[in-house]
Amino acid sequence: MRIGFIGLGGMGKGMAGNLIKAGHEVLVWNRSQEPVQELVGQGAKAASEPADAFDAEVVVSMLADDASTRAVILESGALDNARAGVIHLSMATLSVAFVSELIEHHAKVGVEYISAPVFGRTDVAVAGNLNIVVAGPQAAVSKVQPLLDVMGQTTWPLGEDPLRANIVKIAGNFMLASAIETMGEASALTKSYGVEPADLLNILTNTLFAAPAYKNYGAMIAEQRFEPAAFKLTLGLKDVGLALSAGQAKNVPLPFGSVLRDNLLEAVAQGEGHLDWSALGGRALKRSGQA
Amino acid sequence: MRIGFIGLGGMGKGMAGNLIKAGHEVLVWNRSQEPVQELVGQGAKAASEPADAFDAEVVVSMLADDASTRAVILESGALDNARAGVIHLSMATLSVAFVSELIEHHAKVGVEYISAPVFGRTDVAVAGNLNIVVAGPQAAVSKVQPLLDVMGQTTWPLGEDPLRANIVKIAGNFMLASAIETMGEASALTKSYGVEPADLLNILTNTLFAAPAYKNYGAMIAEQRFEPAAFKLTLGLKDVGLALSAGQAKNVPLPFGSVLRDNLLEAVAQGEGHLDWSALGGRALKRSGQA
Amino acid sequence: MRIGFIGLGGMGKGMAGNLIKAGHEVLVWNRSQEPVQELVGQGAKAASEPADAFDAEVVVSMLADDASTRAVILESGALDNARAGVIHLSMATLSVAFVSELIEHHAKVGVEYISAPVFGRTDVAVAGNLNIVVAGPQAAVSKVQPLLDVMGQTTWPLGEDPLRANIVKIAGNFMLASAIETMGEASALTKSYGVEPADLLNILTNTLFAAPAYKNYGAMIAEQRFEPAAFKLTLGLKDVGLALSAGQAKNVPLPFGSVLRDNLLEAVAQGEGHLDWSALGGRALKRSGQA
Amino acid sequence: MRIGFIGLGGMGKGMAGNLIKAGHEVLVWNRSQEPVQELVGQGAKAASEPADAFDAEVVVSMLADDASTRAVILESGALDNARAGVIHLSMATLSVAFVSELIEHHAKVGVEYISAPVFGRTDVAVAGNLNIVVAGPQAAVSKVQPLLDVMGQTTWPLGEDPLRANIVKIAGNFMLASAIETMGEASALTKSYGVEPADLLNILTNTLFAAPAYKNYGAMIAEQRFEPAAFKLTLGLKDVGLALSAGQAKNVPLPFGSVLRDNLLEAVAQGEGHLDWSALGGRALKRSGQA
Repeated sequence: MRIGFIGLGGMGKGMAGNLIKAGHEVLVWNRSQEPVQELVGQGAKAASEPADAFDAEVVVSMLADDASTRAVILESGALDNARAGVIHLSMATLSVAFVSELIEHHAKVGVEYISAPVFGRTDVAVAGNLNIVVAGPQAAVSKVQPLLDVMGQTTWPLGEDPLRANIVKIAGNFMLASAIETMGEASALTKSYGVEPADLLNILTNTLFAAPAYKNYGAMIAEQRFEPAAFKLTLGLKDVGLALSAGQAKNVPLPFGSVLRDNLLEAVAQGEGHLDWSALGGRALKRSGQA
Repeated sequence: MRIGFIGLGGMGKGMAGNLIKAGHEVLVWNRSQEPVQELVGQGAKAASEPADAFDAEVVVSMLADDASTRAVILESGALDNARAGVIHLSMATLSVAFVSELIEHHAKVGVEYISAPVFGRTDVAVAGNLNIVVAGPQAAVSKVQPLLDVMGQTTWPLGEDPLRANIVKIAGNFMLASAIETMGEASALTKSYGVEPADLLNILTNTLFAAPAYKNYGAMIAEQRFEPAAFKLTLGLKDVGLALSAGQAKNVPLPFGSVLRDNLLEAVAQGEGHLDWSALGGRALKRSGQA
Repeated sequence: MRIGFIGLGGMGKGMAGNLIKAGHEVLVWNRSQEPVQELVGQGAKAASEPADAFDAEVVVSMLADDASTRAVILESGALDNARAGVIHLSMATLSVAFVSELIEHHAKVGVEYISAPVFGRTDVAVAGNLNIVVAGPQAAVSKVQPLLDVMGQTTWPLGEDPLRANIVKIAGNFMLASAIETMGEASALTKSYGVEPADLLNILTNTLFAAPAYKNYGAMIAEQRFEPAAFKLTLGLKDVGLALSAGQAKNVPLPFGSVLRDNLLEAVAQGEGHLDWSALGGRALKRSGQA
Repeated sequence: MRIGFIGLGGMGKGMAGNLIKAGHEVLVWNRSQEPVQELVGQGAKAASEPADAFDAEVVVSMLADDASTRAVILESGALDNARAGVIHLSMATLSVAFVSELIEHHAKVGVEYISAPVFGRTDVAVAGNLNIVVAGPQAAVSKVQPLLDVMGQTTWPLGEDPLRANIVKIAGNFMLASAIETMGEASALTKSYGVEPADLLNILTNTLFAAPAYKNYGAMIAEQRFEPAAFKLTLGLKDVGLALSAGQAKNVPLPFGSVLRDNLLEAVAQGEGHLDWSALGGRALKRSGQA
């Protein structure tokens, strides 16, 4: 299939690479040129403008946030100049307000819009083992399914309204942040009685909480090792903000979300914005004077 | 081994039963007589007073809380009249303040004190598959190890200070409460966008959160089915209180713990104290007017 | 002085009326025509477009929020067509992000921008007794001072950067919301011991808390009388949101602000958005099952 | 009247001094002897045991907390040996749980129990200008009214159940703590936009919040001057704890109370327990990296 791919950060580069390996013709665009060249080396073609990447059956976008997606997809005119019938497979984590706007805009220009955000970090993307939640028009989803199969280990279909996949991704990230904060508070509590975080988390993440999220972040909290950042704390703050604003739009209070936002803001104010967001799990130790 | 066993609630009855099956001589005591008779039928001997159960090498206690432990072990005079050299294997979830008091009292009368609280509900206790965290004097722990092996699938040793096992148990229950609240908030958020809790939790508890705690409570939250209570919400409130008071004693703020306490109190005020504590995971739906 | 006045809600109508009474020539504009006719009856002239109201030495705007100010001042082209040298006296409660944008836009077209938000409800505005916080270029502020003296009992100067007045207004409203929540929680606490909110608040608002904010809202909470709304709860939610977003932009966590937002959202979800925002002070009674 | 007075801290010494000046015969007892000697110099008689101070028509107690009241009034045997008909005027800030216990104990020995906690710091006590909330048996309250008139500027009667005065005092202190936190957060917010706390608080405490509580603590927060401590932060933590535990007993969640507790604990963990409790109002500046 002829595929446009826009956004070659750590995640996008891995995902696009897998599409190339699977034999697809991939037109790549990225603001900076390094990853473009890297993928050209793997067989991609370079698109000189975002609009050029829309000269394809399916365009995948994997940009950092609302603002960059707005700039590259909308303000560049790429979408407005797209052929009717193209499918836009939007895989980034975006706000529900912005996705609503995107849905409307795509309808106007006759481009199909699918939300398909992913769970998994860079290494998982490279391995093609992402978990993908997808929602959009049935026929369009069926058409891109082979691409999702290449990029992910499992696709979780959520119906026709793209916002549904969008909100599940936001809820999932909120749950991760909660797990991190929970481990941080529990660690501060037991440490004050002489039990090291590593000892606590070794027990819990091998029993009741023997899940990837807890094992992964638990190891970082146990060692209080928050660099290098696989996912920056400032991005975590942004994602918790997505949950809070999505909730606000529907009058859903999220008291844990509010605590998370406050603690993440505090972390940024204390100079920890560049650390991995698991550093949220170190705040409780600091706050209680134990680190 | 000759073992006294005090406290035959759902958990204790299962644990004592396993000790009997393993061939030990077990003297049981309980306030109400029904479970005593049941265990006598399995081969136990009935102790008429708590003090009688101390006529053993090891006494296991599995009472509901601080108050009942105080009444049965201390105020009854059972401990004061115990032979020096007896080992008291205390397996209930108790406050750190009360365990500190117990440690001191045991030292005075020459009885060894071991904290060995457990993770797992009634069915896990009956199956002998508990996870047991244990801390106490090395020699004493070695001596009771065969008993722990009978009652649990894994023993997690935490050193010589009994408070260490105690605080890990308290931290673990705090983490469970956090997981319940987190799933409740996430469910309320996605439901407001048309995604049912069951659909959200099916995805997350099979991927990032594929752990017993999430699967177990996630199923109850997905169905909003909080009866019958395997662990009453009022007990959950008590346990979150144990975390908060343990934190307060060491100046460790637990902001998630505070939210949990407030939400559990609200649930009790709204008449939900008798439900399973997973009903905490239904508050966010109610608060947002969705249930 | 020739004055344009844009925005004739309850507050604006009273303020403009006082300027007319003081002998100024006032050109009024409002989306709906009723208040325009009312003021014309008092001696105002009707402007048919927002741009017409800018044909003046000073233009006062008192619109409901960011969105209406954006529509009427920016998107209508009114500001872009204004004469250089006009002073825009912006008296509404706006977000810091939007005020920053306004400052930039005004600088481009050569119109002076002053922030002068007010404390006081409709009756205070009618009586000309508002407390006005003002910040903007010194010379421009001096020029509008006679107008501020007509509309308010006291002007509190805060320097040259308009954001400074803006943020003080936002902080003041946050403090009001906090006072309401505080009285609500205290009332729920004492009522559970048989002391009516009226009895508690009578004591406290005549002693330690003998201040207008507490007396005013305390009376409404004491009677649990939240209609008619002098200031709607949904507007209170908006204002607490202004504090939270202003804080977020500077990495300032506001834990009380987060609780306020959650409780206001809950109130809206429970159908109380149309009530006076003092209804926030009734939530604690409801949450604890006492109302 | 012959009056026993137990507890001569800063508050008690001032109150007892006023009773002496008013011509009463005052028997004083205190653990340390300095204030006893000081009051003897003013005309008091020294009681050598707490029980001796009960040889009076009315015994006033003004001890630091539950623990010291328990030790001095109950465990010393003073109450048990009191003559039936004596009135105990308990003016300290105590927990509702302990006051319930005291009420029961007094009933057994035939001593009348009145709760009459006070609002005001040491200087107010010395000036005889306290605000006193009082509840207890009607006839007994009437009898001690002349004493309350000497110690306070106003007495606020709350009926016959002593817990009613007790809970109002606890609620009042909670409201003070809330006011301090609110000013702290508001100050951190405006400071991040260049407005000094002193400028913000000058405006607000002279307008909407022109009340003693805000003026008094606002001045300390404006200057971030938290020493010397008129009321130690650790005592503030204790008092917020009294509100939370009173609420817990009746299933009343206090979300602001929970935030206050967490922030006060953090302050203690950061070494600020010895400061005036208005230091709570400095946490937001520190948390946001501005102090």
